[in-house]
Amino acid sequence: MKNSSVRVFSLFGIVMLCAAACANVAASTTDRAPLVIKDQGSLIAGGTVTAYPGTFDPRHPLKPDGQTYHGDHVYAFYQIPVDARPLPIVMWHGAGQSAKSWETTADGREGFQNIFLRRRFATYLIDQPRRGDAGRSMVETTIKPTPDEQLWFNQFRMGLWPNFFNGAQFDHSYETLNQFFRSMTPNTGPFDMEVVSRAVAALFRKIGPGILFTHSQGGGPGWLTAIKSRNVKAIVAFEPGSSFIFPEGELPAPIPSAFDTVKGVAVPMPHFVELTKIPILILYGDNIPDKPMDLPAQDSWRARLEMARNWRDTVNKHGGDVTLIHLPDIGIRGNTHFIFSDLNNVQIADLVSKFLAEKHLDR
Amino acid sequence: MKNSSVRVFSLFGIVMLCAAACANVAASTTDRAPLVIKDQGSLIAGGTVTAYPGTFDPRHPLKPDGQTYHGDHVYAFYQIPVDARPLPIVMWHGAGQSAKSWETTADGREGFQNIFLRRRFATYLIDQPRRGDAGRSMVETTIKPTPDEQLWFNQFRMGLWPNFFNGAQFDHSYETLNQFFRSMTPNTGPFDMEVVSRAVAALFRKIGPGILFTHSQGGGPGWLTAIKSRNVKAIVAFEPGSSFIFPEGELPAPIPSAFDTVKGVAVPMPHFVELTKIPILILYGDNIPDKPMDLPAQDSWRARLEMARNWRDTVNKHGGDVTLIHLPDIGIRGNTHFIFSDLNNVQIADLVSKFLAEKHLDR
Repeated sequence: MKNSSVRVFSLFGIVMLCAAACANVAASTTDRAPLVIKDQGSLIAGGTVTAYPGTFDPRHPLKPDGQTYHGDHVYAFYQIPVDARPLPIVMWHGAGQSAKSWETTADGREGFQNIFLRRRFATYLIDQPRRGDAGRSMVETTIKPTPDEQLWFNQFRMGLWPNFFNGAQFDHSYETLNQFFRSMTPNTGPFDMEVVSRAVAALFRKIGPGILFTHSQGGGPGWLTAIKSRNVKAIVAFEPGSSFIFPEGELPAPIPSAFDTVKGVAVPMPHFVELTKIPILILYGDNIPDKPMDLPAQDSWRARLEMARNWRDTVNKHGGDVTLIHLPDIGIRGNTHFIFSDLNNVQIADLVSKFLAEKHLDR
Repeated sequence: MKNSSVRVFSLFGIVMLCAAACANVAASTTDRAPLVIKDQGSLIAGGTVTAYPGTFDPRHPLKPDGQTYHGDHVYAFYQIPVDARPLPIVMWHGAGQSAKSWETTADGREGFQNIFLRRRFATYLIDQPRRGDAGRSMVETTIKPTPDEQLWFNQFRMGLWPNFFNGAQFDHSYETLNQFFRSMTPNTGPFDMEVVSRAVAALFRKIGPGILFTHSQGGGPGWLTAIKSRNVKAIVAFEPGSSFIFPEGELPAPIPSAFDTVKGVAVPMPHFVELTKIPILILYGDNIPDKPMDLPAQDSWRARLEMARNWRDTVNKHGGDVTLIHLPDIGIRGNTHFIFSDLNNVQIADLVSKFLAEKHLDR
């Protein structure tokens, strides 16, 4: 645990110093056992194709006439360890993030990719459609370099800029924040729950039965993916951000917050019941207020956690199996919005492994 | 070798069929030995930071006032095998591509990532600044879904759409082209040789001495990277696209083609001489015409290959060590622009390994 009074280092002026002297992450190999990988690689699933009318003229190749465009697919980097457990884990990032979320943490420790490979799970790390290496979007977009990192520092509950929360499970060094901010990568097309869930369902059709980990914005389309593909055998959702799926006629009242109003999404009952057929674990971290407050970042999570509890109760009322853990309730303190890469991420992985074992998903 | 008369399958109508039935790439594990990885993860290097004037107000976090923005860095996914050779290989993609270039090939075979890991090289696969998982750009851009894939089919010398070249080293199935087209991912900001070479030089400062593989558009900034960082100990350039670096006063005449005019880039002699201090291998594939022709795609490569020969001669005249191999000259036929992922990519890897051994870069 570190002290909340540590301020973020001055961001300006030490950049050049850091370029020369800071974390040589790759060199920090350890005495850990090696990863023994039976097979690894990448693949692409789902997506759509358009064709421009006319005939392609190889002498005027810059004209779109008669040309095609493939987009809105998902990219996945997979690794299958020797003696892998039967169900792989598909890891799905949140808003403004990519597969990087699950790789090396911002302070240079192992992320969930390596941790779960060591626990003999095959892993599939995705870039969702219109993000990262899956950037070809069927819809035009403009990307502006708008300064927004203090928003994210607060929204991701590292603290209240420029102070970290007391005991925040996030390293306080400049280089860690530098790596963290640079892990963000923009949408190359509008975020669309249908588009991304359709592509990830196509991935599950390709790879077969598996477990889905989602983070934040990935939570909502994660539920839709389980509705679209019965190959989703379980979901572990890290701080699902919004877009909880309810049966038509059972939408709870919207929950206003200082940031926005959190609303459920209604689907027909035959779709909703798919979510009652699989075990689901939802985890939320620390520094989420119990009562409304006027700080948008924190208050947004109060409203989301409340909606998540409504959703758990609704799914379980219909025969589902949703477990929601607010980590401070079991004595785990200081977690940010990035529970799986926080300083205590091995403890969090243990919690997830326990869940997977209890639900017989690890054999 | 496959027959040039095979046309590309109808792109429309079999998409849904393929989604259900086509290549289950991940499941195609083989009898190969496992990869034994001592350490793996990702890191970010280089880039710049801006700060918007004013004071950040946590109650109005969507205002840019007092907020920062980090961008123009490079992302790298690294793997270090057990008993690794001393020099790692940094693999740099071309235009419209990402780290995916070096992973699984479009037809599901192992790419250079796995092939060189098996040969005990550590590998660093990058997304250059303003691309893929390194998407935060300091300059605004608009991304349009413009149909252009028949241009690329020709430009990358798979054939003359919709026919493959006779003996093209590229699988002719629909799903291979589907995977290939979907491997493209857009710029999230303008391509800038200085920006990308500065970031990759920062990566070499972090990781220490290494070998640089470049592809196509990566070639030009690859030369600049070697000028910026003496940690670049050798370059293997696969079909460098343009932007060959000459000393001021020694620029050769521009070479017009049916596509564009290829020009050298002038730098001061003290910069240029850095390129004479390291061994460099340049490889070009097949179906590059000897004489001018009116098809832009192929003619562009005639001009580039000619400029590459000029460049080899200039560097070697100044005491350099550049080897240029036009593969058909040594009897290797059918290679496209993606030499390292073509059907004969193990043969190509052998050629590269031979070069690295001759130059004592593998010990």
